[in-house]
Amino acid sequence: MFDPTPILSGNRRALARVLTQIENSAPEAEAALAALFAHTGRAHLVGVTGPPGSGKSSLVNELAKVMRSAGRTVAVVAVDPSSPFTGGAILGDRIRMRDLAGDPGVFIRSMATRGSLGGLARSTAEVVTALDAAGFDKILIETVGAGQAEVDIARAAHTVLVIEAPGLGDDVQAIKAGLLEVADVLVVNKADQPGADAAMRALRASLDLGHPGTRHWADGHLSSPSPKLGGGSGKGAWVPPLLQTVAVQSKGIPELREAIERHHAHLLASGELADRDRERLEHELGQRLRELLLAGLLARLEPGSYDAALEQILARQLDPARAARQLARSEYGVRVGEDPSSPAL
Amino acid sequence: MFDPTPILSGNRRALARVLTQIENSAPEAEAALAALFAHTGRAHLVGVTGPPGSGKSSLVNELAKVMRSAGRTVAVVAVDPSSPFTGGAILGDRIRMRDLAGDPGVFIRSMATRGSLGGLARSTAEVVTALDAAGFDKILIETVGAGQAEVDIARAAHTVLVIEAPGLGDDVQAIKAGLLEVADVLVVNKADQPGADAAMRALRASLDLGHPGTRHWADGHLSSPSPKLGGGSGKGAWVPPLLQTVAVQSKGIPELREAIERHHAHLLASGELADRDRERLEHELGQRLRELLLAGLLARLEPGSYDAALEQILARQLDPARAARQLARSEYGVRVGEDPSSPAL
Repeated sequence: MFDPTPILSGNRRALARVLTQIENSAPEAEAALAALFAHTGRAHLVGVTGPPGSGKSSLVNELAKVMRSAGRTVAVVAVDPSSPFTGGAILGDRIRMRDLAGDPGVFIRSMATRGSLGGLARSTAEVVTALDAAGFDKILIETVGAGQAEVDIARAAHTVLVIEAPGLGDDVQAIKAGLLEVADVLVVNKADQPGADAAMRALRASLDLGHPGTRHWADGHLSSPSPKLGGGSGKGAWVPPLLQTVAVQSKGIPELREAIERHHAHLLASGELADRDRERLEHELGQRLRELLLAGLLARLEPGSYDAALEQILARQLDPARAARQLARSEYGVRVGEDPSSPAL
Repeated sequence: MFDPTPILSGNRRALARVLTQIENSAPEAEAALAALFAHTGRAHLVGVTGPPGSGKSSLVNELAKVMRSAGRTVAVVAVDPSSPFTGGAILGDRIRMRDLAGDPGVFIRSMATRGSLGGLARSTAEVVTALDAAGFDKILIETVGAGQAEVDIARAAHTVLVIEAPGLGDDVQAIKAGLLEVADVLVVNKADQPGADAAMRALRASLDLGHPGTRHWADGHLSSPSPKLGGGSGKGAWVPPLLQTVAVQSKGIPELREAIERHHAHLLASGELADRDRERLEHELGQRLRELLLAGLLARLEPGSYDAALEQILARQLDPARAARQLARSEYGVRVGEDPSSPAL
């Protein structure tokens, strides 16, 4: 049996050991997470995302310092694109730790993609579970990529920070549009550079266009959304504030911290914190069910029937949708999603 | 019953109608795709990805023109980050069509994210199925985002083009590392700008580090990988060529087209084309099975048992992994992935 006591009482070595087990998908991780999960739900999860070149990493470092000065313990999870080709995380923990080394109230962990995004989203959630149980007040979840999936990882948080910077070009503007709707706090970083005022104006105009819509998960969530879900709509609506920072000069960071605290207070007062928690955990439950059910099906299928279906697909004799229905039905009698106009199989 | 004849014989209006049904997940789409799938497998699928600011869209347009001049029919699928907040795809079809308007041998379609990445990957695959059946020789699949998921969409293709550009900053360098391993052809676009030589040198050094590793899917694929899988390793290994282009001046595009054709010839000669086809279709089968099995479980669970499990999770009385096992087992007797050290449930 896993004893969570060392982690709960602040033993950093025990915490690091479990995080490594999580990242390696070690069999011990499962029992540890089950034991730690009971002690979660206290941390304030802050997602930080934004296009490449916006200076997210510097900003997260400065934010962690200001949060420490305000007496909070802080964990940073940096979700890095990585590669077996180049090996390991690009933003090394050692570089990140330079300004924060020796402070036991700060814990920084980089997570590498290693080619499996589904796996990364799951292990990020598990790392956050362990850090929450370990008692950190603030957990900053920073994603380096600018894709939809990275945004999904960041918005598993309670408060989502979207970082912009001037002069990142048209592609970045396009990406930004997808980020705006998930932002609880908007930041134009590198505000000392040319184009900062234009970036502020453009963001403000976008915000004025309307309230953010409902939050969407990559794979949908299973129950009906609570009426309180939806970023800023509804009673006591939160209007995302727009701030300027120059992270490398530590400018604007205390104001940013205050905005994040105000959002946290809003979430608590409105009951939205519980809604976001529910959304996040339900998403995790759905993902785990998908993987478990697929593994169960594959383990129980007649030997060769999966390969036979695949060969028929490759020969273009069977389309993937119908093949999936046949395989699912042969085991479980699953009949959902069937097209009534299809001939009998 | 859906009659595929108009699409197979080149009726663009019929094609557009089915693509709209696919994007809207209309019920009619399923029968259409089942009928069209039998006529696929002839197109050469070319994925185009790279960080924001690399000039992918201009390059894809120029490439389409050069391919047309060489007598090939071309379809372009532009996978755009988008948002209910800003509404619709950012790279509008109309802008893209400017240089290619009136040519019936070109077909351009933008696909919007609309907040659901799982849905986007599926509908992109379905759009490619319809375009393949419609007889296009080359299908260019362009992803605008720079995240792992966007890379996964691009590398569902037979030939993967990775676009770089000088001076995109450190974040982009980090993202680039994750792209390198999936590249079949590498391009430094905007090669007339300062830093192009440095970018070329850095890429060449990275390439010299070693051969690309095995291709990884976001969610893994189900059967053992074929020994021929793996980008460039193995017999008759393909060494990704490194090219320079200035897309806005149409420079270097014919050479790029030739490199893409050489890779296609390599895939055909080595048998790797069939391997990549298998990998792509098996991934699709797995995704469809996951969704089907989950829908089946939810439809068959005792009313309230899913909600009860979720409430226990929210109360931190039950962790998501165990909850998923309980729900799966209660219906199907699924026992896979169970931790033998867990107490009986």
